[in-house]
Amino acid sequence: VKVNLKDHSYHIIFDRIDQLDQYLNKPQKTKILIISNPKIFRLYGQQLKRSLKYKKYQVFEKNIPAGEIHKTLNTAEQLYSFLIKNRFTRRDLIIALGGGVVGDLSGFVASTYLRGIEYIQIPTTLLAQVDSSVGGKTAVNHQLGKNLIGAFYQPSLVLIDRTTLNTLPKRELSAGLAEVIKYGIIKDKRFFSKLEESLAITNNLLAKCCFIKAKIVEKDEKENNLRMILNFGHTIGHALEAETNYQYYLHGEAVALGMIAATYISNQVGLITEIDLNRIIALIKKAKLPTSINYDYDFHKIKKIMEKDKKISSGQVTFVLIDSIGKTVIRNDISWQLVKDSLRFLKYG
Amino acid sequence: VKVNLKDHSYHIIFDRIDQLDQYLNKPQKTKILIISNPKIFRLYGQQLKRSLKYKKYQVFEKNIPAGEIHKTLNTAEQLYSFLIKNRFTRRDLIIALGGGVVGDLSGFVASTYLRGIEYIQIPTTLLAQVDSSVGGKTAVNHQLGKNLIGAFYQPSLVLIDRTTLNTLPKRELSAGLAEVIKYGIIKDKRFFSKLEESLAITNNLLAKCCFIKAKIVEKDEKENNLRMILNFGHTIGHALEAETNYQYYLHGEAVALGMIAATYISNQVGLITEIDLNRIIALIKKAKLPTSINYDYDFHKIKKIMEKDKKISSGQVTFVLIDSIGKTVIRNDISWQLVKDSLRFLKYG
Repeated sequence: VKVNLKDHSYHIIFDRIDQLDQYLNKPQKTKILIISNPKIFRLYGQQLKRSLKYKKYQVFEKNIPAGEIHKTLNTAEQLYSFLIKNRFTRRDLIIALGGGVVGDLSGFVASTYLRGIEYIQIPTTLLAQVDSSVGGKTAVNHQLGKNLIGAFYQPSLVLIDRTTLNTLPKRELSAGLAEVIKYGIIKDKRFFSKLEESLAITNNLLAKCCFIKAKIVEKDEKENNLRMILNFGHTIGHALEAETNYQYYLHGEAVALGMIAATYISNQVGLITEIDLNRIIALIKKAKLPTSINYDYDFHKIKKIMEKDKKISSGQVTFVLIDSIGKTVIRNDISWQLVKDSLRFLKYG
Repeated sequence: VKVNLKDHSYHIIFDRIDQLDQYLNKPQKTKILIISNPKIFRLYGQQLKRSLKYKKYQVFEKNIPAGEIHKTLNTAEQLYSFLIKNRFTRRDLIIALGGGVVGDLSGFVASTYLRGIEYIQIPTTLLAQVDSSVGGKTAVNHQLGKNLIGAFYQPSLVLIDRTTLNTLPKRELSAGLAEVIKYGIIKDKRFFSKLEESLAITNNLLAKCCFIKAKIVEKDEKENNLRMILNFGHTIGHALEAETNYQYYLHGEAVALGMIAATYISNQVGLITEIDLNRIIALIKKAKLPTSINYDYDFHKIKKIMEKDKKISSGQVTFVLIDSIGKTVIRNDISWQLVKDSLRFLKYG
């Protein structure tokens, strides 16, 4: 898949990690920092290093602890220090080997070290493969909120090795499927139907997701308008994640709930049919994702979080709704009452 | 002056600070954060605020202490917190009112808050007016080096009010002239001759500097090649600044010395005539800038700093030299002996 952006287009390659060297044409002795986490590095670090050493690059590695709580400016600062101490120049390279946390953080460091150093992403979770590997969003968290600091910065290459999913916990695989299903809902009715037949993860499925996202991002790199449709399910999803302090749901699980809520709201304002609402819920269930909230949520807290969310423009919450499967509608006239109802729907059906 | 960049062109306007509102077309109630320092804000803050309130914007202010030592990720984090707490969205605005420190830091915060919020620069020092207001370089310092963290990010508008220079200390004015002279040396023989006639700062002079820089930046936004010529005098200049812990020289003063050193090297490798070398020294002197080093520098420390500098590619120091006044040459075959000689020339003539 080729992602065409004005002055920084790049390719998404489907191949094995140990084949990466084939796609690199940096001169010998180029310094490469692999940023990963201990678990992923144990699984794939050596084959990546072998591939890079074959080309006589100088390979460095730095593992960061797993988890969003380490995706901070503090960790970024440690990486800056490492790069400076090892005299990385703008012509050197960073490789992000891991999931979203590693990718977001590495991308942010790459975008800001010496005002930008080249970086490559090797996403090893389904979520990262179909979502964060396309679009150039990099970020770190702030104590007051997730992903509030970041930059739009594109990698020079994304390598997707589907076999890395074999070692991914089942729960994370399901979480990734939430974003896969999202692509069908917002943009491709036929793809949605195919997913209803089978949720088996093939290179074709991954490429399709990347392709849909790439087309949207190409038209709207800096998230002015169209790109907003990618946030389908994320407005309420994010709020549920934040309300539970990111301890309870995986991102994809919260998005699954958010998609059901957004579909429910769509139905209530007369957009999508109840039949399609039920099809969406059924597919989410098939992916072994949660379809209901099983704890006592605090609506006022959720509302507050939504009001602080960066997708809000001048006080009005902007919702991505759907007219039918494959077709989105942007609305900013949704009442708080309806948001409340959608949460009640998630809780009690 | 219009700065034409692919998808983010902007204008540099020459007008009074209190006229800023004329150039803004944001909707009422847009939040605006003025980032400044106590001294500058005392001088110009109120007239800026008046102008903004006239348009019914919501104006916030945040002063940061003066000095490079405050241009850090730490200060940036305080600004992020302020923006988050006051619910700034991507559609709101940051205005940097001040010199290079305020501009670099505000630009960095603007480029990374919510992955990019609009910002306007009102540079109030000569250096900032002719240099940092064009080119989109934003930065913070790292404990291991200056400007090592940053992004390329363009303002939406630059307003230059020449009258702010009336309150600028004479020493800083001279320091700014170093960059003015630099433009003549690297790009415009005729402009250089005019400066020899008079160093009086007019809007024409400022516009000429911005124009020269804009033309260079337009051709090479991300500093791959051509833009490097703007570093004339900066390789050794930076090293002198760093060797003295940024306590002894103003940036422009160090650049003045660096320009003399680079011209000396140019002459030694057979590029520029001794006559032109002397013209350059004379003009620098006329601007009341230092033309010699009057302390015992440590060459090994200077060498180390130069080796760590981000303008170095794979171990070789790249020098911007001059063939004649107005014409640059890039060379990376300059021996350390010659660098040493150029410093000796600065010390003993």
